[in-house]
Amino acid sequence: MKLLTYKTKESESRLGFIHNNRVVDMEDFGGIHNFPLPDDMLDLIDMGFEVIAEINEMIGNTREIDFEMISFPMHDVTILAPIEKPRKNIIGIGLNYTEHVAESARTLDTSNELPQQPVIFSKPPTTVTATNTEILHNPRLTQQLDWEVELAVVIGKEGKYVPKENAMDYVFGYTVINDISARDCRRSGQWIVSKGQDTFAPMGPVLVTKDEIQDPHNLNLSLKLNGVEKQNSNTKFMLFNINDLINDLSTVFTLEPGDIIATGTPAGVGAGRNPQEWMWNGDVVEATVEGIGTIVNTIKEI
Amino acid sequence: MKLLTYKTKESESRLGFIHNNRVVDMEDFGGIHNFPLPDDMLDLIDMGFEVIAEINEMIGNTREIDFEMISFPMHDVTILAPIEKPRKNIIGIGLNYTEHVAESARTLDTSNELPQQPVIFSKPPTTVTATNTEILHNPRLTQQLDWEVELAVVIGKEGKYVPKENAMDYVFGYTVINDISARDCRRSGQWIVSKGQDTFAPMGPVLVTKDEIQDPHNLNLSLKLNGVEKQNSNTKFMLFNINDLINDLSTVFTLEPGDIIATGTPAGVGAGRNPQEWMWNGDVVEATVEGIGTIVNTIKEI
Repeated sequence: MKLLTYKTKESESRLGFIHNNRVVDMEDFGGIHNFPLPDDMLDLIDMGFEVIAEINEMIGNTREIDFEMISFPMHDVTILAPIEKPRKNIIGIGLNYTEHVAESARTLDTSNELPQQPVIFSKPPTTVTATNTEILHNPRLTQQLDWEVELAVVIGKEGKYVPKENAMDYVFGYTVINDISARDCRRSGQWIVSKGQDTFAPMGPVLVTKDEIQDPHNLNLSLKLNGVEKQNSNTKFMLFNINDLINDLSTVFTLEPGDIIATGTPAGVGAGRNPQEWMWNGDVVEATVEGIGTIVNTIKEI
Repeated sequence: MKLLTYKTKESESRLGFIHNNRVVDMEDFGGIHNFPLPDDMLDLIDMGFEVIAEINEMIGNTREIDFEMISFPMHDVTILAPIEKPRKNIIGIGLNYTEHVAESARTLDTSNELPQQPVIFSKPPTTVTATNTEILHNPRLTQQLDWEVELAVVIGKEGKYVPKENAMDYVFGYTVINDISARDCRRSGQWIVSKGQDTFAPMGPVLVTKDEIQDPHNLNLSLKLNGVEKQNSNTKFMLFNINDLINDLSTVFTLEPGDIIATGTPAGVGAGRNPQEWMWNGDVVEATVEGIGTIVNTIKEI
C-alpha cells in the first residue's frame, strides 16, 4: 500500500492511500466500512502494522463507485511529507556505503576506514518538507549545499534490543529522503547544523508499506541535479543493512512507532566530485528510490 | 511560578504548580476560576507565556481553603520530568564554559581552542527521565559514564532569526538537566550515541517560569556524586549566553514552543579529572541549579 499525507483546496493535512491512480481518503474509507481509521499517518502507524492487511482486505471488498466518492484525482491534491512531525529527530546514518566513505575521506574531515559501528546523527522535525517544495538555502550559513539520496525506514512498533533476525518485524514501511547537507557547517565535528537546517529533509512522495517491497536490500536509488544524474547505486551496497541498523539503534535508544531512519547515501555527492559541486538558487534536485518514487525540490535562496 | 508534571496513586501524568509547599493541579485550578487550563505542560506552553501572569493573578484571588481541595502534599505525588516528550530532540550545547573546553581538550578528542560558534548536538526524547529515577548504565555500551549539570532553557514561542536583544521574549522558563555522557561512545566524532541513550537526560524537578528568575546569567550550578561535590560554577561563565544561543539556534532551525536547550556544563566532569572518574551501579548523582532545584538519580546497571 502506498500511503500518503495530502491536502486539497478544501482540507488541511489528511491521510490517504493510492488506488487506481487516485488518492483515497483513509478516514472516509474507514467510514464506509464502519471501521474507524485515522486522518494522520502517525495515528495509523500506532494501530500496528497488522491494520494494513485489514485495510487491504477491505479494499478488495470495495466497489469502484464507492472509491470514487471518497477519492481525488492525483492532480487535485497537494502531497505533503508522509510524516510531517516525527516524534524524534530523524535518525541519520552516515558513511554507510563504501564508496561514499572513500569520497568523504578525500574531501571532508572523515576517516577513510570503514566504520566499525553505524555513524549516527539527527535531523530535527523542522527539517521535514514535502516533494515539490523549496529547499531553503541561506547563503550566510553555507556556500556548500549538497545532496544525498537515501532509503528511509519507518519504524512500526516500539523496540529495544531488537535482534537482527527480528528487525523486520519492527519496520512499518519505507520512504525517500534527500539528506541535504551544508558541508561547511560542521561545528567541532558535529553534523547537526550541517544536516539540520529547516527544509533539509525533503521526504516522500509516499510511504510504501513493507509488504509491497520484496527486498529492501535490493533497491536502486539515484539522484539527478537539473536533469543530470549524480548518484546511482543500490541498497545492497549498504555497509550496515536495515537489520544491523535496527539492532544497533535499538541498543542505543528505544525505537518508537513513526521513527524514521535515513539509511545513508551512496557515492556521488557534490563534496566528493572533482571539482566539487554545490546547489544554488533555482537548481532542481530529484531523489528516487525504486518502488517508492521520486521527490523533486527546488533550491530557494533566502 | 514553579510548574511541574506529577502523578498520584490515582492519576496518570498531570500538570501542576507549587503553592505553599503543596502541588496544585492546574486543570482543577482552572476549573474553580472558570478558566480552562490544560493537564499537560506542552499544552500550557502553547497558550503563550502571557498565561502565567493570568494564573498568578488568579492565585492571588484564591482562598487557601480552595487550594486545599485541589492540591496534594508534596510527599503524596511522584514528580515526573516537566516535559516528558519534547517535540524535538533536546538541543544540547557543548563546550560552553571555558574551563570545560580545557579539560575536554586534555582528555577527550576536542580542540583546546574556544569554539567560535555554539557546538550543537541532540538528545532524543527517549533520554528524558525524572528526578528520583534510575539512570540506566549498559556496561556493554560504555565503561565511561559521566555527569554534566546544566541550566536548561525552555522555549515559549516559535522563533526564526531571533535577534539577540529579543531572545528573552522566546523563553518560557528554566529547568535542570544532567547531560549524561558515555565518553567512549563517540562514533566518527558524533556525540548522539554518547549523549542519547535512554535515561541520559534527567530533568526537573520543576520548570520555573522566567518571571521568577531575576538573572539567568547569574545562577550557581553544582553537582555532587555520592555526596561529594564535583562541579560548582555559575552561569555567568557561559561562553555563549542564552541570548547568543537563541539567536544562533534560531538561525539554524525554527525554535518551537517546548523546545529545550541544555546550555552546557562547567568544569569538573569525570573525564576531566586526574585520575578520571566514572559512575557505576548504585552511585547517586545530584545536579542543582540555583532557583530551580536539585535532581537526584541513581545509576542502575542493566
